Amino acid sequence: MSIEKRQMKLGAFFMIPGHHVASWRHPESATEEILQFDLYKRLAKIAENGKFDMIFFADGYAVNDDIDSAIEHTVTVRPDPLTLLSAISAVTTKIGLTATVSTTYNEPYHVARKFASLDHISGGRAAWNVVTSSKNAEARNFNQDEHLQHESRYERAEEFVNVVRALWDSWEDEALLIDKKAGRFADPDKVHEINHKGNWFSVKGPLNVSRPIQGHPVVIQAGSSEAGKELAAKTAEVIFTAWQTLEEAQRFYKEVKGRLAKYGRSSEDLKIMPGVFPIIGRTEEEADEKEQLLRELIPEKAGVGLLSVLISYDLSGYPVDGPLPNLPNVNEINGGKSRFQLVKDLADREQLTIRELYQRIAGARGHREIKGTPVQIADQLQEWFENHAADGFNIMPPYLPGGLEDFVELVIPELQKRGLFRTEYTGNTLRDHLGLRRPHSKQVEQTLKKLS
Amino acid sequence: MSIEKRQMKLGAFFMIPGHHVASWRHPESATEEILQFDLYKRLAKIAENGKFDMIFFADGYAVNDDIDSAIEHTVTVRPDPLTLLSAISAVTTKIGLTATVSTTYNEPYHVARKFASLDHISGGRAAWNVVTSSKNAEARNFNQDEHLQHESRYERAEEFVNVVRALWDSWEDEALLIDKKAGRFADPDKVHEINHKGNWFSVKGPLNVSRPIQGHPVVIQAGSSEAGKELAAKTAEVIFTAWQTLEEAQRFYKEVKGRLAKYGRSSEDLKIMPGVFPIIGRTEEEADEKEQLLRELIPEKAGVGLLSVLISYDLSGYPVDGPLPNLPNVNEINGGKSRFQLVKDLADREQLTIRELYQRIAGARGHREIKGTPVQIADQLQEWFENHAADGFNIMPPYLPGGLEDFVELVIPELQKRGLFRTEYTGNTLRDHLGLRRPHSKQVEQTLKKLS
Repeated sequence: MSIEKRQMKLGAFFMIPGHHVASWRHPESATEEILQFDLYKRLAKIAENGKFDMIFFADGYAVNDDIDSAIEHTVTVRPDPLTLLSAISAVTTKIGLTATVSTTYNEPYHVARKFASLDHISGGRAAWNVVTSSKNAEARNFNQDEHLQHESRYERAEEFVNVVRALWDSWEDEALLIDKKAGRFADPDKVHEINHKGNWFSVKGPLNVSRPIQGHPVVIQAGSSEAGKELAAKTAEVIFTAWQTLEEAQRFYKEVKGRLAKYGRSSEDLKIMPGVFPIIGRTEEEADEKEQLLRELIPEKAGVGLLSVLISYDLSGYPVDGPLPNLPNVNEINGGKSRFQLVKDLADREQLTIRELYQRIAGARGHREIKGTPVQIADQLQEWFENHAADGFNIMPPYLPGGLEDFVELVIPELQKRGLFRTEYTGNTLRDHLGLRRPHSKQVEQTLKKLS
Repeated sequence: MSIEKRQMKLGAFFMIPGHHVASWRHPESATEEILQFDLYKRLAKIAENGKFDMIFFADGYAVNDDIDSAIEHTVTVRPDPLTLLSAISAVTTKIGLTATVSTTYNEPYHVARKFASLDHISGGRAAWNVVTSSKNAEARNFNQDEHLQHESRYERAEEFVNVVRALWDSWEDEALLIDKKAGRFADPDKVHEINHKGNWFSVKGPLNVSRPIQGHPVVIQAGSSEAGKELAAKTAEVIFTAWQTLEEAQRFYKEVKGRLAKYGRSSEDLKIMPGVFPIIGRTEEEADEKEQLLRELIPEKAGVGLLSVLISYDLSGYPVDGPLPNLPNVNEINGGKSRFQLVKDLADREQLTIRELYQRIAGARGHREIKGTPVQIADQLQEWFENHAADGFNIMPPYLPGGLEDFVELVIPELQKRGLFRTEYTGNTLRDHLGLRRPHSKQVEQTLKKLS
């Protein structure tokens, strides 16, 4: 902990045109521009103006087929995040640029090179959100019938990340000479093959891009499973998580930070940033009205479909303004058991209809919803930040650009007033913003020792 | 042929910092900026200012290991072209954006999506230069010991391109509705799975990006082998070739254009654009001096290495200012026989030393070198253009940005004066510039019929 007051880290998480499933119908959302660069440029500039640490794009490699009416009622187009972020890098100067890329359907050489390239052209602002993908629909776009099993995905992911890091280190920091007079472009003694041969990949190297400005682009992970937590403790620099209550967030925070020491890492080396879904009003009434409008915009079929997916039980035959039917026992459910139980408990406790239920879950999608005036929003963030539940947050605006503008205009000044958030960028790279050390440039042999 | 005078197409081909192997040592080349976006932005703006149809990045997936001293004496770092072009799209408005991507080490879903994304965010300016890769060094970065055999590479490439095109067509042009009132985002009847199962790929689709602005980004190919020519006649819209003489360029032009009819295509549907390596001086003497300077900058080991690779024979033991040694018979050479013969004939005819020989071939690298004043350069381009040898050219400046600036400031006005090149862009998309039709939006079933 430095002498200066600890400040929170903030990411702007971009589902386009908003995190709420009905965002695209919101009168103020920029749905028509969903494939136009001007929208992305505007969003990035709003976030940079707000001094966010980074913008953050989720991703997936298929049109969602979980819900029958997905194509008709939800947003199923999504430009490639690296393409967007490269373009955004040309029109911004400070903000970090995070792209989600899966280790299950890519090759480490390409991924290492793309992030190294983005890191160079952005002046050290790239971050990689490592995911392993989990949908059969994605597998079917990549020559497979079903997605890999959980355990194999994580094994592959760990090897993948290690190979990528070794490729980033395959040019030492001092390798490039560019000595025109002497005719020496690079020092061959400082450029290394990695000669990796593992269970999943054989990669000789070196990379054909020299070492990134940040040493390594920042490595981010989600995932709260046992395998996910262990992988994060070993390799991640930011964790993106989803928690509903202070207690469970604290438990996770303590547990993951506690695993760092055995990998020779300190608490500062890993930032934990849960997602939050903010509904902001100048008054409480305005916030309530905003929420109500979004709820009413959910196409009924999409709402029922989303709820059915969440509880792994098809509700399409039941009256939408009636109660949940008698559901099977949780043990008979072939899907997320904790989500099933959460929904069932909520319905029982508050006696909600199917419509009311899907309206409740269609916004935050499992993340923490915070609602209210700017002061109330700031209070809720501060509580978690100061009570060992979070180092910062991924902000998931319900609709865009309005939801992001509200946060920047109303909440950020309140956080700044409390000394909880920067008023100016003090560095140039994403590592500077996040307070993460730049990895040493080391002989690749050392990196390779870690591959096991 | 339209009533207006036919005009040539021009691409700016970017090896960075220049096409000449010693470009990086040139006092005016921007070698220090090779990984900085400002250089790429400047180059793109110079080319757009010159009204080029497109800029064009070559690519490869390995540090060159053909030449022993490659890392020390040549440029072996190369940012990912799609990353560069996305960023460039944000700071330009008209110029086409061509990235080289190999079908041997990628997946069609990713490639379809990346080019569709670039096409959307650039307003219809994307082009894909399809290559099949041929270096073992690349194979070894992707889990293989040796690169695929020529025939397999072309089979894979053909299937790959067909799958990509089917994915681009998986959303019909009218599929996106974005009807906020009615709650209809897209028309599911106009979004199609492709259900491709072939020898190389199984891809279900649809793509998660709607149909590109150009229908399909422009598809470009190189390759002059029998398989390459046939694949180009079937699927390419631009061919990038390398010819030394008018006669061989004419023969190729006639032969490939002649193959189009059997695929239901017309001569206008395929543009043939040979590479040219221009050395431009305000006077002939200045051009000679420029050439001589570049020749002298070639590091000796790199020059001998390059020549050795070209003739598949190790020359490193021989005096560099002496003649070629007695070479084996062409039939005993395990490599490019025509290049071997070309070099041997040249050495015999002009009695050149090893140094003089490598100085001759280190610039154009097999492409046509044109040298002289702006008028002489324009004459040489015009001759090929008007004699059925080319529809345009890929200009390969010896060093950058100077070599490109010379072309734009000195040669383009001469071509414009002769009515051979546009003075303003008349359209917005790359297809507009090249005079290529936009492919119809058709039911994907029709596209799939072509997959065989």
